[in-house]
Amino acid sequence: MIPLQSTSAAPALASSALLTAARGGRPAHPPVWFMRQAGRSLPEYRELRAGRSMLQACRTPDLVAEITLQPVRRHGVDAAILFSDIVVPLVAVGLQVEIVPGTGPVIAAPIRDAAGVRAVAPLRAEQIPDIAESVGLLTRALDNVPLIGFAGAPYTLASYLIEGGPSRDHARTKALMHSEPAVWHDLLNRLAQISSEFLAVQLRAGASAVQLFDSWAGSLSAADYREFVLPHSRSVFDSLVDFDVPKIHFGVGTGELLDLMRQAGASVMGVDWRVPLDVAAQRIGGRTPVQGNLDPALLLADWPVLEAAVRRIVEEGRRTPGHIVNLGHGVLPETDPEVLTRVVQLVHSL
Amino acid sequence: MIPLQSTSAAPALASSALLTAARGGRPAHPPVWFMRQAGRSLPEYRELRAGRSMLQACRTPDLVAEITLQPVRRHGVDAAILFSDIVVPLVAVGLQVEIVPGTGPVIAAPIRDAAGVRAVAPLRAEQIPDIAESVGLLTRALDNVPLIGFAGAPYTLASYLIEGGPSRDHARTKALMHSEPAVWHDLLNRLAQISSEFLAVQLRAGASAVQLFDSWAGSLSAADYREFVLPHSRSVFDSLVDFDVPKIHFGVGTGELLDLMRQAGASVMGVDWRVPLDVAAQRIGGRTPVQGNLDPALLLADWPVLEAAVRRIVEEGRRTPGHIVNLGHGVLPETDPEVLTRVVQLVHSL
Repeated sequence: MIPLQSTSAAPALASSALLTAARGGRPAHPPVWFMRQAGRSLPEYRELRAGRSMLQACRTPDLVAEITLQPVRRHGVDAAILFSDIVVPLVAVGLQVEIVPGTGPVIAAPIRDAAGVRAVAPLRAEQIPDIAESVGLLTRALDNVPLIGFAGAPYTLASYLIEGGPSRDHARTKALMHSEPAVWHDLLNRLAQISSEFLAVQLRAGASAVQLFDSWAGSLSAADYREFVLPHSRSVFDSLVDFDVPKIHFGVGTGELLDLMRQAGASVMGVDWRVPLDVAAQRIGGRTPVQGNLDPALLLADWPVLEAAVRRIVEEGRRTPGHIVNLGHGVLPETDPEVLTRVVQLVHSL
Repeated sequence: MIPLQSTSAAPALASSALLTAARGGRPAHPPVWFMRQAGRSLPEYRELRAGRSMLQACRTPDLVAEITLQPVRRHGVDAAILFSDIVVPLVAVGLQVEIVPGTGPVIAAPIRDAAGVRAVAPLRAEQIPDIAESVGLLTRALDNVPLIGFAGAPYTLASYLIEGGPSRDHARTKALMHSEPAVWHDLLNRLAQISSEFLAVQLRAGASAVQLFDSWAGSLSAADYREFVLPHSRSVFDSLVDFDVPKIHFGVGTGELLDLMRQAGASVMGVDWRVPLDVAAQRIGGRTPVQGNLDPALLLADWPVLEAAVRRIVEEGRRTPGHIVNLGHGVLPETDPEVLTRVVQLVHSL
């Protein structure tokens, strides 16, 4: 079922709403997509995933392509984002990671010293031919809908590897960072190479944009982010400088970090619902487009409440240098997919 | 073992470092205490708790007093905080709440509609004579060390009651708030009365200050906080207006909410490590003392790193209208208590 309807006299990809807004232009309507749009909120996704582990699914090009396309077909969103998981490249370099349903990534042997760090090998493109293949299938099927490439940022990857799984307080991560800075920077250098290569493979295969997810960056003070994380996220963006595509950077609870995260090399800053978009745009210097920032919990509220929130966000977005409508975090699994479709229709009417 | 050493010619409680700093004065040394200082980091606490549930412990005055005093004796902190749990008053009004080790509060029948809300009865002082008794024991034993009273704020209590336990996204809470505002406000009115009475009982029994914990407020946008939460937290502070004591207000990840939380009626604002103290003091108008804001994860780092962070925080605190040294969140269970003692000694030397 992969082929999307073939477009005949469609406008070129470059003039799509998403890529226009990401460059700071004004498309005919605001572009909209949703973090985690491909996934658990869709019955057709749950059907495809049945009996297959997350990591199996992420490494099977036909499945990746189909799952990535599902929300594009269903909702008419303005972008696809590669269905993947931030630990996919870690598994590709030989680290033992499992994704435990209901928990998240679990690392068999957490990395907490120099020897552990030295075992983190570089990622080579030939270890992930399936990712290039998935992207190839997708760019052909998507035609004029941009495909966004996807990777976890070095800090968030490090937190999983050091804690051994999801963490509320990131205490071991911060202890290593502060007490063994040389070990820390060695680990983050390695993870930056892995994130860079994972994104480069997707861009060489035809992705139209990338988003670097630093999900846990919001757990850090600005001083710690600047010293221990920014240089490594910057090295990811720097490595992609020859790809002339939008580079989106996002983390949750990062109100105090937005400008530092922009300085890492982002051309679009993702913003969560804690900071109004126009305030965020000012905070990052007034020249960088923004993406966000509907609280995903509002997708569970009554339509009039949700409609008002979407209209407010689109209004706030008009007072920024460019706006891609999105959530401030991923779609919650219990979200009614028909509500997502209705949000897309509303945004396209504004 | 309850009696602390009796002080002879000690300065009066009112001129203690904590109460002086909380009024915007400059004590001889910065006052310091730690959120969750009474608890899992102390072996003497784990010994006392063995075989007793958290809720039993919180309702047994001898135990509450002993547990509350342990960190005062051990670390020489400048304040005690009543050992309790935010769900204690909920249990007192008849709600079925269990504290599950490793999880947190679990509510047998989550509250999600008007009928559920109507079943939330007011708190009467005679339902918690043990709390008054605990405070009485403590104020006698503590002599010139201030005792801080403790309650959860209406929003955080509501989140537990609606979600049925701890929640990552507070999605049901936000859905009720937005979709059934009348039910929401009814619930928060009731919870505000409960928080108010729980604090009033502690103040009438002799507590020298209070802290209102809105642990989850940081999950809200400023617009939602202002409309759905602020009026209720304000009603808690308003109800205590006749008690001339410091009123501390704290939540995690509340950088965007600090001034709204101050406006609720706080005389001291708690700040987490995401916002430097001097920046926070400016953000809340430059006239309100602040409390915080060491990242508790730094207590697991090497001493030179921790020492530098404590010195920086004390420096930043000197550029505010008053500063109580504390963490930016609770002590982590794996913290070495000797490190806490050393931090107290360092702060007292500055």
